[in-house]
Amino acid sequence: MPISIETFFLDADAEGTLQARIQQMVAQGILAGRFSRGERLPSSRRMADHLGVSRITVTLAYTELVADDYLSSKGRSGYFVSENAPEPPAFPAQQASKSTVDWARAIAHKHAPAFVMERPADWASYKYPFIYGQTDPTLFDNANWRLCAMQALGKRDFNAMTSDYYDRDDPKLIEFIARQILPRRGILANPQEILVTMGAQNALWLTAQVLLNARRRATIEDPSYPALRTILTHSSCQLSAVAVDKDGLPPADIPDGTDVVFTTPSHQCPTAATMPLHRRKALLKKAEDDNFLIVEDDYEFEMSFLKAPSPSLKSLDQNGRVIYVGSFSKSLFPGLRLGYLVGPAPFIREARALRASVLRHPPGQMQRTVAYYLSLGHYDALVRRMSRAYKERRIVIDQAIIDHGLTVAGRGTFGGSSIWMQAAPHINTNDLAAQLRTKGVLIEPGAAFFSGDDPPQNFFRIAYSSIAASRIADGIRLIAEALKAMEARPKS
Amino acid sequence: MPISIETFFLDADAEGTLQARIQQMVAQGILAGRFSRGERLPSSRRMADHLGVSRITVTLAYTELVADDYLSSKGRSGYFVSENAPEPPAFPAQQASKSTVDWARAIAHKHAPAFVMERPADWASYKYPFIYGQTDPTLFDNANWRLCAMQALGKRDFNAMTSDYYDRDDPKLIEFIARQILPRRGILANPQEILVTMGAQNALWLTAQVLLNARRRATIEDPSYPALRTILTHSSCQLSAVAVDKDGLPPADIPDGTDVVFTTPSHQCPTAATMPLHRRKALLKKAEDDNFLIVEDDYEFEMSFLKAPSPSLKSLDQNGRVIYVGSFSKSLFPGLRLGYLVGPAPFIREARALRASVLRHPPGQMQRTVAYYLSLGHYDALVRRMSRAYKERRIVIDQAIIDHGLTVAGRGTFGGSSIWMQAAPHINTNDLAAQLRTKGVLIEPGAAFFSGDDPPQNFFRIAYSSIAASRIADGIRLIAEALKAMEARPKS
Repeated sequence: MPISIETFFLDADAEGTLQARIQQMVAQGILAGRFSRGERLPSSRRMADHLGVSRITVTLAYTELVADDYLSSKGRSGYFVSENAPEPPAFPAQQASKSTVDWARAIAHKHAPAFVMERPADWASYKYPFIYGQTDPTLFDNANWRLCAMQALGKRDFNAMTSDYYDRDDPKLIEFIARQILPRRGILANPQEILVTMGAQNALWLTAQVLLNARRRATIEDPSYPALRTILTHSSCQLSAVAVDKDGLPPADIPDGTDVVFTTPSHQCPTAATMPLHRRKALLKKAEDDNFLIVEDDYEFEMSFLKAPSPSLKSLDQNGRVIYVGSFSKSLFPGLRLGYLVGPAPFIREARALRASVLRHPPGQMQRTVAYYLSLGHYDALVRRMSRAYKERRIVIDQAIIDHGLTVAGRGTFGGSSIWMQAAPHINTNDLAAQLRTKGVLIEPGAAFFSGDDPPQNFFRIAYSSIAASRIADGIRLIAEALKAMEARPKS
Repeated sequence: MPISIETFFLDADAEGTLQARIQQMVAQGILAGRFSRGERLPSSRRMADHLGVSRITVTLAYTELVADDYLSSKGRSGYFVSENAPEPPAFPAQQASKSTVDWARAIAHKHAPAFVMERPADWASYKYPFIYGQTDPTLFDNANWRLCAMQALGKRDFNAMTSDYYDRDDPKLIEFIARQILPRRGILANPQEILVTMGAQNALWLTAQVLLNARRRATIEDPSYPALRTILTHSSCQLSAVAVDKDGLPPADIPDGTDVVFTTPSHQCPTAATMPLHRRKALLKKAEDDNFLIVEDDYEFEMSFLKAPSPSLKSLDQNGRVIYVGSFSKSLFPGLRLGYLVGPAPFIREARALRASVLRHPPGQMQRTVAYYLSLGHYDALVRRMSRAYKERRIVIDQAIIDHGLTVAGRGTFGGSSIWMQAAPHINTNDLAAQLRTKGVLIEPGAAFFSGDDPPQNFFRIAYSSIAASRIADGIRLIAEALKAMEARPKS
């Protein structure tokens, strides 16, 4: 029985080549049970006329479908749904009609926050995206990334891509992290001291799980990375927050009884302050005197384009007290979800066992692609290209901030990708962000960075990592105008 | 100053094209500080002679290095290390000389097991790999996987690949799971009821964290998946194990006070038993009567080549009590690390928040690649190809087991990819596995699957998912010979 030509139509919104869309249309029809085994498809000529495409495109799509055994070709009689084509399920799909479960009771551990920061998925369509931590398509080296991915997808790397590594990592990636990245931070480490993680987020989470429990005390910076505070809150440890100054975390303020200190010495998050060498040494001395461990989140160390980067805390550590967190999210892209932990072997062994239980390992295909990208030198070329662009944008944004009289609360003297801003005390930057969004400007309200129940509402962060230099001045002007209008109104 | 030609050599063991290896050799020398800015490289002709490669290969490598700003070209004067080339770190790399940390105290939660099952990373080099859960390169459709990866790596999908999704997933993958995979299991679900996970391992881990605590009781099958037992032990819940029979988990034996039951109805792990429909209904009724939840690990449902698959528990669930775990590890490859959870929205919301805190999201590039692979019908074609091969191998292995008089302890009547075997009571299959390994045969000892302190030592699992049909008979013969030799010896 021939399938009616009328049942075929190409979705105008679908993506992919015409050939791929035709393949998809036919395969979907078979999988959904609309076309049955043995039914004849319209000839390639009729189908081409009907869809308004070339006949060769239809023929190529049919040929592919034959190769995949969706269709069979019977010479001049045409194409038929294959006798081996998949059958749709015999039992009807159905949704649970009701629920007899008391979910408020059934959930043993609550993790969902009462309030979630709104993060537009379509940030790239905004004209002035002062958004933090996303990748700028004009800077990323997609061509070489694709080439490295192709290499990692090759037959030669089949095992590296497909294998269940259990608790292991790609030895090639470990080698290039040890050889090429860590030496630039003054760190020598062997493979037993390195663990690949699902980004810095996962590295911080693993570290908190291994080192903390209800009897241990963690000390964080205030303000600090909101996701870290969430991680530590879930770990149910005791938690202290120490206010940072223009040099980052002051070691003298770390409270007695602290077991683990989380710090961001390269670029304090979110103030971007860089901790000076004398303070780094004082922090290490205090760690030894008070017997605490230090978790060094060295994010964005690569983006040090105004001065040469300081040596990492880890490189100054004589006593094995520093656990180092690195990430490819800022230097490559966050959707990669790759970072790494460097620490003493007994710690890494525990973090590795926990990671294996939680997720086994980051995908081999991603690990191998990054290994190639590093080994061929593309990574370093990319970091230099990004640094040059950020430096240019930084000059523009610094000037625009002066021109419009905005107040900077913190800004990296070494580099970074963002500036920490302060509005008048009565301004709520959540309202500011909502207003600006309607004008195509994205900024990040600052309250979530602070510890305590009554965080200041008048801070915000603007990043220059995803906005073209030519757009910056106009964007800053719009921020200044919105602030001026809000300041003129009395507090509601 | 020219760089001496003698400092260049190609590592004979290195991988990649000649051109890539030359690029890597030069980039590494610059990054390690051996070649400094402004130094002249040997001419392409001299380098080609020295390395024994064609001149055009060297020229292409140099051109790439110029594009990445490692080298600069000065016309007829040749190639020089660029003035913008990266500088090696100024501070010397060093390793912590000693440790003053008491790691036995510093580690708050221990996860590393005392004993780790040895899993050879080089399993593919064994002649008789009856290994479970790895991908057979002769069955996997690498060409189409590469094409889908290429599409996901394209400019059009740049945001899907690179973006930080925070707690979201690729909407395209969610759509194809909902439209194309779940209907075949009789399940209708909307996007709020689906979460992408890092494989089934991560899905089970997230579920345990959300549903269990020290006051809750989980019931598992005995024997069962060892990694699940590890997850539940770490969750510090109360844990019961119920012995399975030839139809899987007997609902009547589930102890009172159970909050969550973990079960593998499609192919019980490791016995491969399929739970009959009447027992599925009895299990659901008991869940309603006793007010417990069911976690259905539906791994390998695709590998149902002997009979049509049974409807999933989830599809029979009228009361919203079943949480469904699916995985692409067996149908695509385990190194992909992609699976999914399907459950009531309140549960998925918590699992999503926890996943965001632990790792944010599985990499966008992997999610999008699978979405294309599904949408173009390659996934279904692959599953059919695998099913045909497994069916052929199953016939061979069943016959070989009869021919050599081995004892089957459990074998799927629907399909699956492994057979659960039993040796004489005094045989230790850890010893058996070690002996067989020296003969190129890989099997999996069975003790780790059992609950309790004194697990039986005489079970083992043999899989036919990664071994060619032509090798099976010989491999089974070697197992039988080793068993016979061990049985002849008195217990040591």
